[in-house]
Amino acid sequence: VRVGVAGANGFMGAEAARLLLSHPHFELTLVSAGESAGKKLRDVRPGLDTDLVLQPTDPSLFERHCDAVILALPHGASAPIAEDLIKRGRVVLDLGSDFRIKDPEESFRWYGRHAPRRRLLEEAWYGLPELTGPPPEASRLIANPGCFATALCLGLAPLAGQPLDKVRVSGITGSSGSGVSPAPGVHHSTRATSFVPYKPLEHQHLGEVLQLLKGKGASFEVDFVPHSAPLTRGIFLTLFVDMPADDLYGLYFSAYEGAEMMRVTQGPVPLGAVIGTNRTLIGVSGTQSSSVVFVALDNLLKGGSGQGIQNLNLLFGRPETEGLPLHALWP
Amino acid sequence: VRVGVAGANGFMGAEAARLLLSHPHFELTLVSAGESAGKKLRDVRPGLDTDLVLQPTDPSLFERHCDAVILALPHGASAPIAEDLIKRGRVVLDLGSDFRIKDPEESFRWYGRHAPRRRLLEEAWYGLPELTGPPPEASRLIANPGCFATALCLGLAPLAGQPLDKVRVSGITGSSGSGVSPAPGVHHSTRATSFVPYKPLEHQHLGEVLQLLKGKGASFEVDFVPHSAPLTRGIFLTLFVDMPADDLYGLYFSAYEGAEMMRVTQGPVPLGAVIGTNRTLIGVSGTQSSSVVFVALDNLLKGGSGQGIQNLNLLFGRPETEGLPLHALWP
Amino acid sequence: VRVGVAGANGFMGAEAARLLLSHPHFELTLVSAGESAGKKLRDVRPGLDTDLVLQPTDPSLFERHCDAVILALPHGASAPIAEDLIKRGRVVLDLGSDFRIKDPEESFRWYGRHAPRRRLLEEAWYGLPELTGPPPEASRLIANPGCFATALCLGLAPLAGQPLDKVRVSGITGSSGSGVSPAPGVHHSTRATSFVPYKPLEHQHLGEVLQLLKGKGASFEVDFVPHSAPLTRGIFLTLFVDMPADDLYGLYFSAYEGAEMMRVTQGPVPLGAVIGTNRTLIGVSGTQSSSVVFVALDNLLKGGSGQGIQNLNLLFGRPETEGLPLHALWP
Amino acid sequence: VRVGVAGANGFMGAEAARLLLSHPHFELTLVSAGESAGKKLRDVRPGLDTDLVLQPTDPSLFERHCDAVILALPHGASAPIAEDLIKRGRVVLDLGSDFRIKDPEESFRWYGRHAPRRRLLEEAWYGLPELTGPPPEASRLIANPGCFATALCLGLAPLAGQPLDKVRVSGITGSSGSGVSPAPGVHHSTRATSFVPYKPLEHQHLGEVLQLLKGKGASFEVDFVPHSAPLTRGIFLTLFVDMPADDLYGLYFSAYEGAEMMRVTQGPVPLGAVIGTNRTLIGVSGTQSSSVVFVALDNLLKGGSGQGIQNLNLLFGRPETEGLPLHALWP
Repeated sequence: VRVGVAGANGFMGAEAARLLLSHPHFELTLVSAGESAGKKLRDVRPGLDTDLVLQPTDPSLFERHCDAVILALPHGASAPIAEDLIKRGRVVLDLGSDFRIKDPEESFRWYGRHAPRRRLLEEAWYGLPELTGPPPEASRLIANPGCFATALCLGLAPLAGQPLDKVRVSGITGSSGSGVSPAPGVHHSTRATSFVPYKPLEHQHLGEVLQLLKGKGASFEVDFVPHSAPLTRGIFLTLFVDMPADDLYGLYFSAYEGAEMMRVTQGPVPLGAVIGTNRTLIGVSGTQSSSVVFVALDNLLKGGSGQGIQNLNLLFGRPETEGLPLHALWP
Repeated sequence: VRVGVAGANGFMGAEAARLLLSHPHFELTLVSAGESAGKKLRDVRPGLDTDLVLQPTDPSLFERHCDAVILALPHGASAPIAEDLIKRGRVVLDLGSDFRIKDPEESFRWYGRHAPRRRLLEEAWYGLPELTGPPPEASRLIANPGCFATALCLGLAPLAGQPLDKVRVSGITGSSGSGVSPAPGVHHSTRATSFVPYKPLEHQHLGEVLQLLKGKGASFEVDFVPHSAPLTRGIFLTLFVDMPADDLYGLYFSAYEGAEMMRVTQGPVPLGAVIGTNRTLIGVSGTQSSSVVFVALDNLLKGGSGQGIQNLNLLFGRPETEGLPLHALWP
Repeated sequence: VRVGVAGANGFMGAEAARLLLSHPHFELTLVSAGESAGKKLRDVRPGLDTDLVLQPTDPSLFERHCDAVILALPHGASAPIAEDLIKRGRVVLDLGSDFRIKDPEESFRWYGRHAPRRRLLEEAWYGLPELTGPPPEASRLIANPGCFATALCLGLAPLAGQPLDKVRVSGITGSSGSGVSPAPGVHHSTRATSFVPYKPLEHQHLGEVLQLLKGKGASFEVDFVPHSAPLTRGIFLTLFVDMPADDLYGLYFSAYEGAEMMRVTQGPVPLGAVIGTNRTLIGVSGTQSSSVVFVALDNLLKGGSGQGIQNLNLLFGRPETEGLPLHALWP
Repeated sequence: VRVGVAGANGFMGAEAARLLLSHPHFELTLVSAGESAGKKLRDVRPGLDTDLVLQPTDPSLFERHCDAVILALPHGASAPIAEDLIKRGRVVLDLGSDFRIKDPEESFRWYGRHAPRRRLLEEAWYGLPELTGPPPEASRLIANPGCFATALCLGLAPLAGQPLDKVRVSGITGSSGSGVSPAPGVHHSTRATSFVPYKPLEHQHLGEVLQLLKGKGASFEVDFVPHSAPLTRGIFLTLFVDMPADDLYGLYFSAYEGAEMMRVTQGPVPLGAVIGTNRTLIGVSGTQSSSVVFVALDNLLKGGSGQGIQNLNLLFGRPETEGLPLHALWP
């Protein structure tokens, strides 16, 4: 299967390219990038050992060279390109947020942008395989979940049927979650020695999380506070859940039994154990009355391009874990 | 006032020495350290520009050269030395945990050690000036609060009279909180790229926090989960409080009005703004129903040696902030 | 003495403001910043506990409120403001590069900008006290050396009379050396896990270094390669010098005997021992034929604002170290 | 081919295990570790998703389950186990230093330990494929080069025939180079904010480097100063070479033409581009008279376990790059 990556010079796009370059079944045939078009990918991203030259993000080029296209574009930029590519008969996996929320009003509320055409929005498959299953065979458009959204959904969905009023979640993210564009919040000097909450109780990923939880029948509220941490990669969540720890462990264990890239354990889990992998670790600690649940994943892999490849593996009938790293770089 | 530091080669002791070397009223007259005795302090800690030679931790030496002694010793090692020094008529400020909990059974429960003599325990003054006021004039023994304890007390005490069942707290600490001894949890290779919860719901500092909260009449439970973060310095707490944010802000604002080294603001606070200072920042965010409170301080200053100097300033009739850094090193 | 800081929202300017806020003799009376004018300094830099409001960078304001002005402006922006302030009878200390190189052609060669009026250039005092002595009493304009330049001059000047053909220098700098503006080279994600040489053999600070060395009669060449390191603060140089280590040690020791903020030792020196201080450590290692010399300093203090205060201390007849931190934050 | 790893709980051993777990041709059949024997590898190293249980380091176990054994043991511990395993007909790849230096006196000089039996020492193949070629078919014992040694050899060998008196090299290493055992030099608190030279001009890896260079006919001296940098992974060298940059570039280009995992470029190279890969980047900058050469590699991959797998690939007739990561984790 010939796969292209639009936006291959960003963190998400370069990660998608990296995975495709080593994938046994998919072939990376085209990479594009706005401003760097014309340069060799290796000259812009010297960690990628390939002679591919960055092209302009032109749908006709992708039509000619690819069966599927991964869009790693700024939020809001995917919709028109996706529509064009689908008309040209290409499968699209969107790493951005344009197609994640089904209800146009909700989409506008959380992202402050008008949603794409309703028909496309309806057709888009929200692909979080452990919770939604594989994309239907005829899928032409997959909306890949956001990084925090992936962690929140995996941590909260198993609680759907429980008698809980509210779940409080404290989360952290590494700086790569903010994208490759320079900005004050990712200046090394301040990021490396600080720790800062942002968008407390109002992070935009809550929209897609609540949509999925609603579909699972969950009725509890979610108080979520993300923090910028001095890490380059990684998402870590700490959930406060008022349930006996033993029951909780059982709940998560059965929810994810058989999920090849998930592991549920008793006690804390270290974020370091998932960095560089497509795995999610879940840990449960607590007593009879108070518990905490931990969720750890790599924002660029399971929280992004890795999950994208996982979705494409399933869509194209490949083994779910094919080409995906399972063992963490340590240290 | 002549002040000595026992354990001056550890993080807390070296920080106390650093502050004393620049203090306009206190004079650093003696430094001690077990294994490094006989060496110049500058040869062991080249960042301290002094010719003082490390001595053995011998009470008679401290009696001869000091009016007050700061103990920066391993937990459990302070009690006998403090008792000896007090007999010799010296004022003792203990940065360790030996004298923090009044009830010997509680002390044993949280620290797994038998408490010192009951008489000394009763005499010890738990010194967190913003909440306990200055030490009584005749104090001979001050128990300095723990780093997480200081942050938890400052964040939770103002909630004492409120109708709350439970407050959930997620916290982080830098690696200096673990002390200078090499250990797997502070190996740079793993610490620098991970984020790991530890002792979830059962951190030992809860003992002194609950003791103080009980004294303030608080009846809510506290679920506290600390995490090891890839920072060298700093404590940051995120408290989930089911109260309107406006009420909360008012509560904290009045609680700390007039406290020179505290600042209460609306919205998130960055940890970086307190590093290298003796200040505490508190931020409040939220809605009518759900709120979060943030507490940020430097674990070696307000969470340790800085607060120790603050206590000694007050005891010796000096201005509370004398010799204490108020402006953060940035970056 | 009333002192103002122009560009107080950058790293250098904020550091100057921090030092002035704690200085026993200088008073910070005015802070300015282009885009943030009108905001409280504490709202922009929450680590600075002051109610001062940022003003526009207007010479008449500085004239009214200040006796001396520290310019922490982008390279090239200082010259016209300095000229205006001097006409108004104010003392100017420029942290930028506009007045460092005396020869206009050399200045253009190294900085790619036309130098300011020749008269001002001639009047400017290049202030590196350990090598140039204190500024003459009547100085109105002090050019503060660059960060790498300070380290290179301190490391190379004592070698001036020696029979050396070439000295090779490998250097590193923390990310704060690049200034507060976001840019790809200071993105946390890439900076935190990489190490990259830049401008090999052609760093612009060489101009002022060669000017000073020429004045000292040095005839050797300097091959200098700086590297971007994953640190927030700090300059560290490794000089390869073909001389017996014992001779070298003696050379440096006598060169800096009596310099209160310098320390010359045998063996390696750790960068951490100078962070947060205005000190410079020099270490010498080697054999009879091959030696290495190490130079460590804090780029924002001795390599910038700290040296600026040191120059002002001397100019205004204060003790050289007044208000300057001498003991390192550790860790 | 069934491969075992002795010392699988250290950084090098865990990295070898990680590579083997994903290798298409080698199978990881046995892992051993002294103190952790009996535990599942995943419980000790949660980043490795395997049910293998750590065994004691017992040669008979390795004989039963493995065709080849990778020794990732403390320096000095390999020799007796290697000898035993070879007697039992197993191929041994030693990641330690016991078999690297042929001359027992030199070995003692550099490592302070008595070398293993001379016969074994003579038989051992020093395997740095780009310089030594593939191991001879009948090899039973491969001595894998040290991390700094690999970088130094790759950087210096092409200079062998040139008229140079001395090459000066400044190098840095990440903290994983010091191994997994806690020690003051790898305490996160001090490592994360410092930069420290160590063993200036006398690093123990020089022994094996000089041995290889001598074999290539080089006559220049090497002044080498390594530094501890605040990185977890990576080796970076800066070589000062008194030759025209163009000649140098040609020299390196032809030396490594055809080497699949090396890349020679003009200008600086970023360390980040090799982290997580088995590649080496070499960059050349300079003028007609002065040049600098940069060498970048990952100390646990090309500088350790990755090169080990490369050697085993060649010995067992597999493609040289099989199972080795070629594209860097970015960021």
